[in-house]
Amino acid sequence: MRRAVALAALGLGGTSPNPVVGCVILAADGSIAGEGLHHRAGGPHAEVAALRAAGAAASGGTAVVTLEPCDHSGRTGPCSRALIAAGIRRVVYAVPDANPAASGGGRTLRAAGLEVVGGVLAEEAARGNRHWLLATARHRPFVTWKYGATLDGRVAAADGSSRWVTGEEARRDAHRLRAAHDAVLVGAGTLRTDDPSLDLRHGVVGRPPLRVVAASSARGLPAAARIWDGSAPTLLAVAEPDSAAGLPAEVEVLAVPRGPQGRGVDLGVLLRELYVRGVRSVLAEGGPTLAGALLEAGLVDEVVGYLAPSVLGAGPSSLASAAMPSVGAAARFVFGAVTRLGADLRISATPVPAAVPSAAPVAAAAGSGAVAR
Amino acid sequence: MRRAVALAALGLGGTSPNPVVGCVILAADGSIAGEGLHHRAGGPHAEVAALRAAGAAASGGTAVVTLEPCDHSGRTGPCSRALIAAGIRRVVYAVPDANPAASGGGRTLRAAGLEVVGGVLAEEAARGNRHWLLATARHRPFVTWKYGATLDGRVAAADGSSRWVTGEEARRDAHRLRAAHDAVLVGAGTLRTDDPSLDLRHGVVGRPPLRVVAASSARGLPAAARIWDGSAPTLLAVAEPDSAAGLPAEVEVLAVPRGPQGRGVDLGVLLRELYVRGVRSVLAEGGPTLAGALLEAGLVDEVVGYLAPSVLGAGPSSLASAAMPSVGAAARFVFGAVTRLGADLRISATPVPAAVPSAAPVAAAAGSGAVAR
Repeated sequence: MRRAVALAALGLGGTSPNPVVGCVILAADGSIAGEGLHHRAGGPHAEVAALRAAGAAASGGTAVVTLEPCDHSGRTGPCSRALIAAGIRRVVYAVPDANPAASGGGRTLRAAGLEVVGGVLAEEAARGNRHWLLATARHRPFVTWKYGATLDGRVAAADGSSRWVTGEEARRDAHRLRAAHDAVLVGAGTLRTDDPSLDLRHGVVGRPPLRVVAASSARGLPAAARIWDGSAPTLLAVAEPDSAAGLPAEVEVLAVPRGPQGRGVDLGVLLRELYVRGVRSVLAEGGPTLAGALLEAGLVDEVVGYLAPSVLGAGPSSLASAAMPSVGAAARFVFGAVTRLGADLRISATPVPAAVPSAAPVAAAAGSGAVAR
Repeated sequence: MRRAVALAALGLGGTSPNPVVGCVILAADGSIAGEGLHHRAGGPHAEVAALRAAGAAASGGTAVVTLEPCDHSGRTGPCSRALIAAGIRRVVYAVPDANPAASGGGRTLRAAGLEVVGGVLAEEAARGNRHWLLATARHRPFVTWKYGATLDGRVAAADGSSRWVTGEEARRDAHRLRAAHDAVLVGAGTLRTDDPSLDLRHGVVGRPPLRVVAASSARGLPAAARIWDGSAPTLLAVAEPDSAAGLPAEVEVLAVPRGPQGRGVDLGVLLRELYVRGVRSVLAEGGPTLAGALLEAGLVDEVVGYLAPSVLGAGPSSLASAAMPSVGAAARFVFGAVTRLGADLRISATPVPAAVPSAAPVAAAAGSGAVAR
């Protein structure tokens, strides 16, 4: 199962609106007969890919899979029937399928006389699928807030410069993080001060994430910004859609109501719209105002911070909000992994209470993209 | 030697103006015959303590000591002669004595026919003695800058509250850090907003550090502040000594010139004065202005940060300075140990280039307190 979870992780960033899934087929003698993973929606499911790799050796064997095999015909046939047809005797899975349209595979397999064991390494597998599991439960994408800061908490210097706060290894990791998300989200301030391209560089390959800009108005956004270059799908979420008339035709303009106190756009509405479009994970890359608005709306599911061993003495912090005026009102998280990346430190944290839902199936109906698996 | 280094560390915070030293005496058969450490200036040196513990078993044995045995009669007799008198055959030490008045022990021992080996685990032992080694080389105390901050780099909330940013384990560690320094330094702002007592609590015992307040004037400092309570030696470094007339008589007032641009006091002068008084290490505990002034003067030798998994959205950062207006001008450090303390993270860092001098002896004459060992 640990191998299946590792296989599943290789698909991260490419499978939405589907989950990541990994599968290992063991032959009747317990040896590995085949492996597979789900690469992209519409492509073969992990079980089918692993069965193909195993061939005749699957007969009488065991399928080890990170998610309960599906029981419905979406763009591909149901995995439950494929496993039965291949002569699999025993199915071991980690997490029940949270998608009500696809679940029931375990029942079908048992009815066909197969031995079925669920919940094996469920926590580890659910963690690998946390983007999809939370999105399916909440009908909005999983949101990772990412920042890079100095020891004294500055994300930029007094002159606004913010490039190269962290070193090359941290930047490469940040691009891998980008590749593992379906969309990247920035606010108007970051677009003006940093002019980011939000593409995949530093040797990271993958499907470029959807670039999303949230701004109350397109007025004041630079017409020559890199983000409008057409190199990847780009969406402008704006409260005044008429203001976007001058932008390139490739930029999709999405009208979104204004946010609380009339500032920015309603991020909850934006995220639900992104979910309907198949986006299951969003990386919020800047800046402090956007991060503050996401936090105030309860829309931060994970924090990834790159900490540089330097100080700047002045400049903005990673998050700006007036909602926590005292230490007692601080928003609290729990540290996850802490790793060294070259000279820098990468920290991760999740909110208290945990925003990641349990691996149990949810009763709510899934959104439009959820049945595509 | 690793055991000797661990013994030496137990003396940290109590030995100034002397270094920390640990010693293990091995009997002729290689078994441990005795152990000792230097507890406080005027008390027995580590070698003498270990020889006493070993008794007759020292004869024909080996002395393993973290610092080259001294060769002079300060308040105690020279260790070189004590080792010879006890019949020690072999002396293994880590770091040469940087104090020119005390060095030469190795030579004396060799002249008496003993085998002498220096440099064993020298880096580890020098790290354990870094406060004293830097102080002896620079004629000013080693300065550790300590802060506690949130993920978004706030050391206090918008309302000024800063207590309990970090949890109990981090606070206890911070008190241990205090106990390992000879003095604690705060600026006028911290005295006004936090009213710290700067004593040892949270179950930490030891000699309470000298409490030092740096302020251009005593006017505006609260007369009822906890720091004036007489519970530990307290020193006010002030550019306008007349302004301190109203403070309790127990508070020592030290006149220090104003700092750069007429702000605060000249911290270099203050630190040299503290050195003359026997202070070999200073823990700078607050606030951002003091930290910025120390950094600008090149007077930060180590950083210890306690990072809490929370965000505040507003409030001051740990360090304020106008000297680094761009990312290219950032002051750079190198991360040292990173450890978890309960829910919090403790990071340490040292400046680039390393401010810690090599373990080699220095030629300059030692200050008044340096020959006391």
